[in-house]
Amino acid sequence: MQGDQRAILKAAAAYPARVRERAPRVHCLTNHAAAGITANMLLAIGAIPSLTDHPDELPDFVGGADALMINLGTPDQGRVDAVANAIGIARRAGVPWVLDPVMCDRGAARLAWSHTCLSEQPDLVRLNEQEAAALSLDVTNALGQPGIIALTGRRDRVMAYGRPTVLLGNGDPLMGKVTAIGCGLSAVAAAFMAVSEDRFMGTMAGLLAFGVAGEIAGRQAAGPGSFPAALLDALHNLDAEIVIEKGRLE
Amino acid sequence: MQGDQRAILKAAAAYPARVRERAPRVHCLTNHAAAGITANMLLAIGAIPSLTDHPDELPDFVGGADALMINLGTPDQGRVDAVANAIGIARRAGVPWVLDPVMCDRGAARLAWSHTCLSEQPDLVRLNEQEAAALSLDVTNALGQPGIIALTGRRDRVMAYGRPTVLLGNGDPLMGKVTAIGCGLSAVAAAFMAVSEDRFMGTMAGLLAFGVAGEIAGRQAAGPGSFPAALLDALHNLDAEIVIEKGRLE
Amino acid sequence: MQGDQRAILKAAAAYPARVRERAPRVHCLTNHAAAGITANMLLAIGAIPSLTDHPDELPDFVGGADALMINLGTPDQGRVDAVANAIGIARRAGVPWVLDPVMCDRGAARLAWSHTCLSEQPDLVRLNEQEAAALSLDVTNALGQPGIIALTGRRDRVMAYGRPTVLLGNGDPLMGKVTAIGCGLSAVAAAFMAVSEDRFMGTMAGLLAFGVAGEIAGRQAAGPGSFPAALLDALHNLDAEIVIEKGRLE
Repeated sequence: MQGDQRAILKAAAAYPARVRERAPRVHCLTNHAAAGITANMLLAIGAIPSLTDHPDELPDFVGGADALMINLGTPDQGRVDAVANAIGIARRAGVPWVLDPVMCDRGAARLAWSHTCLSEQPDLVRLNEQEAAALSLDVTNALGQPGIIALTGRRDRVMAYGRPTVLLGNGDPLMGKVTAIGCGLSAVAAAFMAVSEDRFMGTMAGLLAFGVAGEIAGRQAAGPGSFPAALLDALHNLDAEIVIEKGRLE
Repeated sequence: MQGDQRAILKAAAAYPARVRERAPRVHCLTNHAAAGITANMLLAIGAIPSLTDHPDELPDFVGGADALMINLGTPDQGRVDAVANAIGIARRAGVPWVLDPVMCDRGAARLAWSHTCLSEQPDLVRLNEQEAAALSLDVTNALGQPGIIALTGRRDRVMAYGRPTVLLGNGDPLMGKVTAIGCGLSAVAAAFMAVSEDRFMGTMAGLLAFGVAGEIAGRQAAGPGSFPAALLDALHNLDAEIVIEKGRLE
Repeated sequence: MQGDQRAILKAAAAYPARVRERAPRVHCLTNHAAAGITANMLLAIGAIPSLTDHPDELPDFVGGADALMINLGTPDQGRVDAVANAIGIARRAGVPWVLDPVMCDRGAARLAWSHTCLSEQPDLVRLNEQEAAALSLDVTNALGQPGIIALTGRRDRVMAYGRPTVLLGNGDPLMGKVTAIGCGLSAVAAAFMAVSEDRFMGTMAGLLAFGVAGEIAGRQAAGPGSFPAALLDALHNLDAEIVIEKGRLE
């Protein structure tokens, strides 16, 4: 590991304690399968989740949040309207927001909706290779600055225009065998971004923490059933020392 | 512990077996993140959960239930209508019902909706300190008799007009680090109330059982991830002897 | 065990590997409490779940699926419409589909809706004794060929017109103490059916694998809380050898 990578790792390792101390409120509009585990991931890192998509409640809940996470899974018309509404509130209030265009490679309607959301310039887009390909997403043109792309998979990449791409090497194959792990990561990244001055750094710190926790969980779990509990325990117990010891920037 | 506290503890300890024997049906209108764990808590204590909020189904499901639990999280218009509808059915059919005004301190719309529900005189309101403060809830005036307030937190208090307040000392800090634990407790309290002649006593027995199970789970869990499974196992395995041995009335 | 039972068992034991190899896409329209665990069961066996019920998305998601699973729990009007829509898409596209008329014995509206769905001739109906009784479901007249009935309970029975009924003896009592286990089984059966040439055989292989995994999980779990993780781990780790060793055809 080079000297500046060590410095980045050390800076990133300070984030879990910062999230716990500041307890950011993260409002999530997300799919049914992800709601519970996403809320539990946020609680495990010391953030405060909320989930309502009722139009009368969005001004208070989104406007009073420290970050907003939008996941496009299992929509109904109410959530489609809520997403547009919440993005508008977040932009006017200066609340950073994350887009997770889940399964946008699986249907034309989902893809069109993802493009609509992207045109609102999210602070961060978190997605996998197939989703990025479907969106023709490219760090050099798809997002206005200061948009960040977190491309997750066997290796995670954090990219933004004018910044050197960061490659993160932690994780575990079981993360792909449990529903809503990526959805939850998007919410965790939103929480880390909420306590950062440099959103690129905050995103990177969130993905690093999540990957380290996933790797710890993968060694404890007997399969995808025991993995989520181990992941939440690891997120809860994470500290700077563990991140520095296990974190891999590549 | 004083003599009458010992008598109360002994009476409360008989409830878990009674719930298992009578298998009360508890209909829940609740938020998305809480649906699964709430149903599992009810099954773990031997009750029978149902969750539909479709208007055509409420007469059969609520009218045929032994208790109704209303949690105000993540509403959509369909659930808002269902809540009003279900409360009306429960009141006409004499089905006891519990209100959980979750996060009513977080937004004006949620607070107004909570007040509307409160005006329908729930048999029990289960909430935390911030929610009670937002509602200006006070046992001496906010609810008509025989309304009961279960104020939960580091210590739980069960209060009703004209009854000595009961303080319960069991629990574990991890209960605050997992989503929907309070929501599930509201459903468990509804089940205990359903098999009681004295609803104050039933509520108290439900909170005591839940607190004891939470304390057992807290000692087994490695963090908030492994806590819910341990809690459900402890609820399932609870008996009178454990409640008498570990229960703390203060 | 007789010789032809041994042959059936051996054939069924080959299915888990086939599901993993072909990774069938299973679209599920299901209740809120079941969404997460159903998706996780499908992932654990190597299938690919999707869950949307938005009308604009159903043509792509259902039309592109290898099987469809319809569970009637916790409906709202959007899902009621989606169910009719999805069944039509599946029938036109030749996608096999499974009906799970959950709790149709509990209300007149649910029962009527179940009959409507049944009239569309599902390839498989998965239900328990009380639900089958409420529907007066009988293998000799209720379904047109090649409809299959999987009647699950203490023993599972797989039945179809003109085929000898198969009795399966695996499982664990804890399967009845956790929400959405039956719902998840319906999705698992859909995945197995998706990779079969003989749908009766595929259904039987799915139920057998699930029962064996449930039995393994029941021996590891300390109660209904630790059961679901153990079940998912067992489904993930299942192979032909385990099915042959533990499977019981009766």
